[in-house]
Amino acid sequence: MANSSTGDSVTDRLVRVLETFTPARTVQTAAEIGRRSGLPRSTAHRIVGELVDAGLLERDDDRRIRIGMRLWELATRSSQALRLRQAAMPAMERVQARIREHTQLAVLEQDEALFLERLSGPESGSNVTRVAGRLPLHASSSGLVLLAYGGHELQERILASPLTRLTTETIADAGELRRKLAEVRALGHAIARGSIEAVSTGVAVPVRDETGTVVAALSVVIRRDAPTVPALAELHRGRTEIERALGVRS
Amino acid sequence: MANSSTGDSVTDRLVRVLETFTPARTVQTAAEIGRRSGLPRSTAHRIVGELVDAGLLERDDDRRIRIGMRLWELATRSSQALRLRQAAMPAMERVQARIREHTQLAVLEQDEALFLERLSGPESGSNVTRVAGRLPLHASSSGLVLLAYGGHELQERILASPLTRLTTETIADAGELRRKLAEVRALGHAIARGSIEAVSTGVAVPVRDETGTVVAALSVVIRRDAPTVPALAELHRGRTEIERALGVRS
Repeated sequence: MANSSTGDSVTDRLVRVLETFTPARTVQTAAEIGRRSGLPRSTAHRIVGELVDAGLLERDDDRRIRIGMRLWELATRSSQALRLRQAAMPAMERVQARIREHTQLAVLEQDEALFLERLSGPESGSNVTRVAGRLPLHASSSGLVLLAYGGHELQERILASPLTRLTTETIADAGELRRKLAEVRALGHAIARGSIEAVSTGVAVPVRDETGTVVAALSVVIRRDAPTVPALAELHRGRTEIERALGVRS
Repeated sequence: MANSSTGDSVTDRLVRVLETFTPARTVQTAAEIGRRSGLPRSTAHRIVGELVDAGLLERDDDRRIRIGMRLWELATRSSQALRLRQAAMPAMERVQARIREHTQLAVLEQDEALFLERLSGPESGSNVTRVAGRLPLHASSSGLVLLAYGGHELQERILASPLTRLTTETIADAGELRRKLAEVRALGHAIARGSIEAVSTGVAVPVRDETGTVVAALSVVIRRDAPTVPALAELHRGRTEIERALGVRS
């Protein structure tokens, strides 16, 4: 994620501090945060100190810094992420219990698929998705659904951008991606075989709100050559349950 | 939650803006945020604008403001809340599937029990807990566990504070609470009958990390007069699974 280049407000500097924390880097020293945020050392130290005082960051016994429970609470308790996720959980649990593979809910965020939830069983196969992690729109089944229903402007922007190849099967050609998106809209689902990991196939369906807008993608990650029909049947049932929980009249 | 009175840094003002969003108030106008944050109108508008530019808040089609997905993502992806919750989910799903009542995970945050997760089935009974919601330490079974193992200083602070009565059965007397905490430590679990809602009983056990520190409480909310022994057996099994996932050697 590039740093904001639109200005240098205090909020921007604060975001640059928060962005130094990643799933792979959950604990840092204040000096590391300063270096990684690209902010002047004294500025970074002051912001970290203020965030610790406010409880948004926490200092452990070794004076290393991590994201505070208070920040998670403030960001979660009134968020759309929580509302969607709570509406989806009972359906996701049923899909996971029946298909016994990773079951996921993703939304569109800054031209990527952001995963709000992932449920996995002990026997589920390989899967790179994480809660609060992202995947490219053109490569993942969730992303293909979000892109296919995401409107013309988004589609043209993605089609004009470099389509990074994650595996030999990732769609990296704009014409091919355009045909795939038309297919997703025609079928009402996306199947992405081997395009994130060679050993897995993603299967995703759109979830709509009461206005008919696609607000999320519900997906499962199955073994590459597992049949997709049972997964699709469960996903369509799950999607209907979620839409009902979101207030959509069927 | 009272506003910070320790200073007036930009971070404080930003927290005051974020604190105006609650589970019951997920969408507000900029003017409402200004009024509720207690900040000067122009200051509140500027901060809201900066937070919208950074994606931490979002503006909908009616120009009303809500918490942004980007804030949820930054607060979640590297948080201890997510780590604990992911370690606990498989065990929580098993407890929920067997007891078929609300199954919850809570941590200590600012002298209250903060709930990281809640799983419920269609047949689960009454329950006021929400994800990212809080309950008082002296009233909830999770809170009693977190308080009983939370150290002398925390206990004396809570014992010296007003113990608000939520029902006629909430412990509101310091001497009685002190005896209850000793009982929780002696038994290794807390049972709170009717102290949050008259119709429900909370049952909670401590979850420890590899240093032996209690880092969370695992609980179920059952019907008031349901037997507690099956719940306790499942909670102890679940707790062991979570501790193993956290790297505790048994």
